[in-house]
Amino acid sequence: MAQYDLPLSQLREFRPNVQESPDFDGFWARTLAADPAVSATEEPLENRLSTIDTYDITFTGFGGAPIKAWLHVPAGTNTPLPGVVRYGGYSGSRGMPFNAKYAAAGYAEFVMDSRGQGWWGSNLFGGTADHHTDAGAFGPPGPMTKGIGSAETYYYRRLITDAARLMQYAAGHRLVDPSRLFVAGGSQGGYLTIAAAGLAPSLRIELAGAMPDVAFMCTIRRGVEITDNQPFSLVADLLKAAPHMEDQVWETLSHFDGVSFAGRATCPGYFSVALADPTCPPSTVFPAYNAWQGDKDIEIYPYNGHEGGGDVQTWKQLGWLADR
Amino acid sequence: MAQYDLPLSQLREFRPNVQESPDFDGFWARTLAADPAVSATEEPLENRLSTIDTYDITFTGFGGAPIKAWLHVPAGTNTPLPGVVRYGGYSGSRGMPFNAKYAAAGYAEFVMDSRGQGWWGSNLFGGTADHHTDAGAFGPPGPMTKGIGSAETYYYRRLITDAARLMQYAAGHRLVDPSRLFVAGGSQGGYLTIAAAGLAPSLRIELAGAMPDVAFMCTIRRGVEITDNQPFSLVADLLKAAPHMEDQVWETLSHFDGVSFAGRATCPGYFSVALADPTCPPSTVFPAYNAWQGDKDIEIYPYNGHEGGGDVQTWKQLGWLADR
Amino acid sequence: MAQYDLPLSQLREFRPNVQESPDFDGFWARTLAADPAVSATEEPLENRLSTIDTYDITFTGFGGAPIKAWLHVPAGTNTPLPGVVRYGGYSGSRGMPFNAKYAAAGYAEFVMDSRGQGWWGSNLFGGTADHHTDAGAFGPPGPMTKGIGSAETYYYRRLITDAARLMQYAAGHRLVDPSRLFVAGGSQGGYLTIAAAGLAPSLRIELAGAMPDVAFMCTIRRGVEITDNQPFSLVADLLKAAPHMEDQVWETLSHFDGVSFAGRATCPGYFSVALADPTCPPSTVFPAYNAWQGDKDIEIYPYNGHEGGGDVQTWKQLGWLADR
Amino acid sequence: MAQYDLPLSQLREFRPNVQESPDFDGFWARTLAADPAVSATEEPLENRLSTIDTYDITFTGFGGAPIKAWLHVPAGTNTPLPGVVRYGGYSGSRGMPFNAKYAAAGYAEFVMDSRGQGWWGSNLFGGTADHHTDAGAFGPPGPMTKGIGSAETYYYRRLITDAARLMQYAAGHRLVDPSRLFVAGGSQGGYLTIAAAGLAPSLRIELAGAMPDVAFMCTIRRGVEITDNQPFSLVADLLKAAPHMEDQVWETLSHFDGVSFAGRATCPGYFSVALADPTCPPSTVFPAYNAWQGDKDIEIYPYNGHEGGGDVQTWKQLGWLADR
Amino acid sequence: MAQYDLPLSQLREFRPNVQESPDFDGFWARTLAADPAVSATEEPLENRLSTIDTYDITFTGFGGAPIKAWLHVPAGTNTPLPGVVRYGGYSGSRGMPFNAKYAAAGYAEFVMDSRGQGWWGSNLFGGTADHHTDAGAFGPPGPMTKGIGSAETYYYRRLITDAARLMQYAAGHRLVDPSRLFVAGGSQGGYLTIAAAGLAPSLRIELAGAMPDVAFMCTIRRGVEITDNQPFSLVADLLKAAPHMEDQVWETLSHFDGVSFAGRATCPGYFSVALADPTCPPSTVFPAYNAWQGDKDIEIYPYNGHEGGGDVQTWKQLGWLADR
Amino acid sequence: MAQYDLPLSQLREFRPNVQESPDFDGFWARTLAADPAVSATEEPLENRLSTIDTYDITFTGFGGAPIKAWLHVPAGTNTPLPGVVRYGGYSGSRGMPFNAKYAAAGYAEFVMDSRGQGWWGSNLFGGTADHHTDAGAFGPPGPMTKGIGSAETYYYRRLITDAARLMQYAAGHRLVDPSRLFVAGGSQGGYLTIAAAGLAPSLRIELAGAMPDVAFMCTIRRGVEITDNQPFSLVADLLKAAPHMEDQVWETLSHFDGVSFAGRATCPGYFSVALADPTCPPSTVFPAYNAWQGDKDIEIYPYNGHEGGGDVQTWKQLGWLADR
Repeated sequence: MAQYDLPLSQLREFRPNVQESPDFDGFWARTLAADPAVSATEEPLENRLSTIDTYDITFTGFGGAPIKAWLHVPAGTNTPLPGVVRYGGYSGSRGMPFNAKYAAAGYAEFVMDSRGQGWWGSNLFGGTADHHTDAGAFGPPGPMTKGIGSAETYYYRRLITDAARLMQYAAGHRLVDPSRLFVAGGSQGGYLTIAAAGLAPSLRIELAGAMPDVAFMCTIRRGVEITDNQPFSLVADLLKAAPHMEDQVWETLSHFDGVSFAGRATCPGYFSVALADPTCPPSTVFPAYNAWQGDKDIEIYPYNGHEGGGDVQTWKQLGWLADR
Repeated sequence: MAQYDLPLSQLREFRPNVQESPDFDGFWARTLAADPAVSATEEPLENRLSTIDTYDITFTGFGGAPIKAWLHVPAGTNTPLPGVVRYGGYSGSRGMPFNAKYAAAGYAEFVMDSRGQGWWGSNLFGGTADHHTDAGAFGPPGPMTKGIGSAETYYYRRLITDAARLMQYAAGHRLVDPSRLFVAGGSQGGYLTIAAAGLAPSLRIELAGAMPDVAFMCTIRRGVEITDNQPFSLVADLLKAAPHMEDQVWETLSHFDGVSFAGRATCPGYFSVALADPTCPPSTVFPAYNAWQGDKDIEIYPYNGHEGGGDVQTWKQLGWLADR
Repeated sequence: MAQYDLPLSQLREFRPNVQESPDFDGFWARTLAADPAVSATEEPLENRLSTIDTYDITFTGFGGAPIKAWLHVPAGTNTPLPGVVRYGGYSGSRGMPFNAKYAAAGYAEFVMDSRGQGWWGSNLFGGTADHHTDAGAFGPPGPMTKGIGSAETYYYRRLITDAARLMQYAAGHRLVDPSRLFVAGGSQGGYLTIAAAGLAPSLRIELAGAMPDVAFMCTIRRGVEITDNQPFSLVADLLKAAPHMEDQVWETLSHFDGVSFAGRATCPGYFSVALADPTCPPSTVFPAYNAWQGDKDIEIYPYNGHEGGGDVQTWKQLGWLADR
Repeated sequence: MAQYDLPLSQLREFRPNVQESPDFDGFWARTLAADPAVSATEEPLENRLSTIDTYDITFTGFGGAPIKAWLHVPAGTNTPLPGVVRYGGYSGSRGMPFNAKYAAAGYAEFVMDSRGQGWWGSNLFGGTADHHTDAGAFGPPGPMTKGIGSAETYYYRRLITDAARLMQYAAGHRLVDPSRLFVAGGSQGGYLTIAAAGLAPSLRIELAGAMPDVAFMCTIRRGVEITDNQPFSLVADLLKAAPHMEDQVWETLSHFDGVSFAGRATCPGYFSVALADPTCPPSTVFPAYNAWQGDKDIEIYPYNGHEGGGDVQTWKQLGWLADR
Repeated sequence: MAQYDLPLSQLREFRPNVQESPDFDGFWARTLAADPAVSATEEPLENRLSTIDTYDITFTGFGGAPIKAWLHVPAGTNTPLPGVVRYGGYSGSRGMPFNAKYAAAGYAEFVMDSRGQGWWGSNLFGGTADHHTDAGAFGPPGPMTKGIGSAETYYYRRLITDAARLMQYAAGHRLVDPSRLFVAGGSQGGYLTIAAAGLAPSLRIELAGAMPDVAFMCTIRRGVEITDNQPFSLVADLLKAAPHMEDQVWETLSHFDGVSFAGRATCPGYFSVALADPTCPPSTVFPAYNAWQGDKDIEIYPYNGHEGGGDVQTWKQLGWLADR
Repeated sequence: MAQYDLPLSQLREFRPNVQESPDFDGFWARTLAADPAVSATEEPLENRLSTIDTYDITFTGFGGAPIKAWLHVPAGTNTPLPGVVRYGGYSGSRGMPFNAKYAAAGYAEFVMDSRGQGWWGSNLFGGTADHHTDAGAFGPPGPMTKGIGSAETYYYRRLITDAARLMQYAAGHRLVDPSRLFVAGGSQGGYLTIAAAGLAPSLRIELAGAMPDVAFMCTIRRGVEITDNQPFSLVADLLKAAPHMEDQVWETLSHFDGVSFAGRATCPGYFSVALADPTCPPSTVFPAYNAWQGDKDIEIYPYNGHEGGGDVQTWKQLGWLADR
């Protein structure tokens, strides 16, 4: 995939109008107020490692549903560490317990299972279902369009709330120094990172930073229009079959654009983007970066696709985190 | 797609062992006994046609959930006609009201909306959701694997029950001659046709015939092993990510194989199969045909893929129906 | 296929220069004057339907060649009805007799077999050959380039004349109300619809409307330049092998552009277009719409490919027709 | 494309039953007797070469139609040379005049234009049309299926007759030593080579040898069943759309199988075949080789696809020819 | 990719004849005797982790060339640990320093850079060149065919020697318990694992175990014949262009088949294989497993492709290692 | 591939800034001064042709390495002829001796083997290795990126020097008229043609003309950014894996851009370009044409891909050469 999108000089200034519901803040305030307390159980897991301790967490997500997560810390940790809450890409689960790079670098690393996902990559420990009455709504296969008929029933309302709850839980955790809490993730995980950072102020959480990579769900309508890749294309698929739903779909999505969340984020942001990314086109990512309200920086990978910077970006993140 | 599967001479005798739960009959008896009465509402729909009358039906499917269907009859019909209950392919909805070939030929044609599907083809009138707590189970996108962790929670338990309920409803309908009731459909619709025919005796419904085309979900394990096409491949995708679920998955599916249903069907069967079908390989279809207990015939399309005989087969069906 | 073409705002105003032969009108006048009378035979066909009567028509097309068509009417019709003449897409035949949506809605529906085509879709009743000495001219496979060495020998000269003859035949048919005659079709059928409407005034036929969907053969040169999809790409294939023919090819095609026909059409036009259509790019369709001389409207399907609006558009057409 | 077909040890003994019309010999005798005399015009062509002289030939093919060909000889030739008649692959023309490898090696090289083809490769000098009333018969694009409704009207009846006529013309040419006349070609050209060699005895031509490479149209029905590649797949495409034509199609083709011609060929044969050829599968080629009645040898390219041995095989042919 | 290869029951007994040079043992004895001593430099690397220490190693590989490797150990390690030498897949480098799962589990983990590779995946620290005069031999791109004209010059002679040298170095390392040294790797790394295990006895190294996943370069000729995937297909590509080299190529490869090495391996072996692997077909892997001389076990992933068991297999390996 | 690049009107004026090292001329002067004398051996080859004599040449290329080439002349030539030095496309070898179109037209035709290439097309006589210590540098498979870490070690430094040496050798050859010496080639051969023409003045060679077709390696950075096709994409692949090398790579390539060489070429240039070429995009070719300093003309193939004008362009070249 060559550099098919806007040239970099335009991307740096690209601030298209993104449809945002006038009720955006109200919608999220009501959503987060519904069951504000997060509770969790935590069980030590035999992770077959000698350098990392892992806890198997089940916390209360949207609607109080049980959501799985990992907490990884350097072996023997019993005092607060800086923390990283990590969210996963579309299709993935919380993964295997030995994938714990931030913990290996000395952080308390929380990893969230995405409800109803986990069908890609090794998944012996995931399996969080989306036990919600709208999870079986008709539409193209995959969570992307489930319940898209209204903001209240849309899948990402539930997933973002899960993400916010885990952030809240981490912020209050005995092994976390709340003044050095970060959120991170790639693709859908990048979107949840931006959403969590955007909601943090209203939850009175002061994040030390957010690290969204090749973030999904930003400048959504443009994404649906210019790429054939899933998951954006699933919205197009829905509207192919049911064109009468178009206004309704955009109205729903006007409560979910990553650009809207970015415009409410105040912590430092460390983004990455790939100029040949066919899944999360750079012209959908840059508007979120450009809207970000905190200090910010962005790593640009001119030749990469949706894999983005991969381990190179992780390497840079470890440096960025260490400086904070 | 060339003729990649077993040669026709072997297909005609192909009767592989298909895993069938010893509790198969008990499972279905319990399932169908759970909420045995079917009720429905029926509203005339302005279908923009002069030769066909259409009724918009909402009937009680599995768990009493509301399921949409059409009833099409020749305009002005008010006395009983022979009936055809038609089930749809994976991804489809009940479609637009002017797709009513059996009604155009003088039948009372019922068309079921498949819950949670309808993302392909024009769908202004579908949208039946799968409002069940297991509809959001983790797994590869699409209903194929939803709830596959147990026979009780598996998606096709609900869909087959819906299909049986609509057959029951049709059998008692004022515009249907119950001695001339048929079931029909292609691909997933062919599977539901076989399942409905296999369950009919236990529901004390005497069908006049069943017409399954290029039927899906027969000889399931072989299907999962030899084709890369969806939906069979979704089971492989699940087991790639979660290999520890393999026994559990086959145990679940041992309650759902079309071959098991075919072995319980006693009405006349008029099958079709395509020898170059990469989605429902002929070596998965023939075992169902070979197991069928009633009179039977099969049309073989040597060069076609999953489109099967298409309108040619419809043409032949109209002849076959007229002879019954 | 994403929205790869011009943005909608530009499409609405897109009126590129289209090469039109100065002899355009003379060429078509001479062509249509050559054998102006159309005659036909009509045999009732056992169509296996109870609500529709079908007649098997053989009419005299270009050069007096025998061309097949259907006439479908509501069963028992013996007085004039509004009529629809339907033309088919590239590769198709007149199809099976139960595909008769306009007849089901109360119209006298004529369906033309495209000479030399019919290799896609069920075709038990088609098979009209292109018995013309230029049908075997060298060139990429398919009628698109046959005889393209001159306007006189080009395939579409014959096909358009066939289309005009069937329109003439329908206009004088005993079961048709000539004041309510429509032409319709998708893709190549959309092109023939536009061509028939453009030629109607010179044939002294006053059409009540034309309904071209995702029309082919408009803004031809642009189509050849911007899409890799057949049939447009076949012209590029010819010019790859025989670049010395380029001027000759464009000269021939300057007698055939749908935009030229649209500029001569005066009846009401009801178009549809898909913004992600890779076969008939929206920027080739809009110039025809923009050139249309009669009242007009266009349905835009932003996310669909060449399937266009499909049954949704049919549904809308039934409403549009009923209002006329 | 890996070695997907039968293993070599089986191929060497593979002699499947090939359907052959009982009237095979009568059909070809009648065909060749229809207009037995071949006449031609010959014009020197400025070929821009200093080492080769080229003549532009127009000879009378099937039905007396004008067919183009080249004659290339070493510059200044005016006494008889050994001759090679070369036939081209499906889609090709006689090509540009500087493609004359046999002439460069000292042979009188005739190259036939395939009527109705020539859409691939540089073609400034081809353009032979198939001016026959059946050339526009309905069917999948391309000559492969044109007129396939009967042996009399089938395209290859005409093309094979053209090939035989050019062989006859070459055999009597002033610059050819008739005791050293060869036929050659690849793919469709290999088929025509086999056909010409098979017909030569009945035309009282004693060929010095035949060199068919990766020959097409042998063991035809197997080819249609096991490969998805054009041109074999076009027969499958026809039968997908028009399954009622199946018996008729096989009856027609029972007059055209390369295996039948090979069984009548008595001159030395020098074949080549590629074991990974997806277009002319080795299991369709070997039966023709195995049926060949003259001395024979075959070069096997285990890893090549339809390109076969390419220039390596040409190199070997030049050695083989020199030894004869 | 479905299960396209032999059925599992046959795979378990599959022991095809694999061409092995009569000089196999002599060839490797001479190769390893050439520069038997391995020396290395070791520099601590700032790896941005708190739980792992990393050393940047440069050791003397084949011909004394400098080869890069990592040594990862739990932070602060200064007494011997059990060791794992890990080899990488075709195209990869030693990777980023935080990919150290065996070290995280308490092992001294060595990771070799594959000379001349490293073009896939994040590679900030690799870049070992193949500084050998035969590295630029003509042939299809990639190391697979470089120098394949003779066993002496073939690329894998150098790479296997590098692998053996690193194993020797690890066996004598101050942080390694030589009685608990393992070798491991996937794909090409699986091949090097088998090769190292096969050579270990002659180097007087007693390995505690070998863990080859989806191993490449076993039953090589079959691999070249049945798959189209790189790297096996590169041998076919070479022989397509240069068919005269065939005997020479197989002679060279008769010194390199993984099955030959497996037949000389005496340590415990823990294999994995995927039944839908198109790159290293299961029928090429099983012969190596079946030939293995030590205790052995194999994990079978029926639905996976070349990714094999992925992290699931790593999880199982950590258990297997802990039991030894 | 449609016309995806800039419109022709812009291409004709397209003169983007191309990064050129300030040391460009110094670098090449030093390179060519290193071993300025070219020497060669020449053996007559039995080429199996009667009209052409072929000599098997081994000449001293970069670093004095032995490089293979052909010399083809009309049979019996022993006095000077105009000469053409032909360079080959990426992946090819000098080919088989009967591919000698310029010799057939009366020229002394030299054909260079590209070191380390020759993996595509029939290659019984090639096999020139790239015996250089940097030939095995790490990087994506293929010569494109070998040694790209510096201008001194980059593959194309060696290949261009080879090309210049053969041009020097030809210019002094006993069978060549030095006042009528041409260089020619397509794709990579087109690039070498431009490079040879650009270096000729500094080597005091006065070329009579250069004929670059669909030239590679012009406007390199743009090529890497806009196409996914090899070989340009290999640079992107390298930078995906090793983004830290980006500046270094562009610095290296600033010594190699075809546009820089074109700006130094003073002989007549006869270019060709294809507007749908996905491998050497027209917007990379035109800047070289636009920079050319001598008389010039360009043939434009609007519909062709990387095959360009093929034999049609050869035909035109023979005319162009004859006029000079």
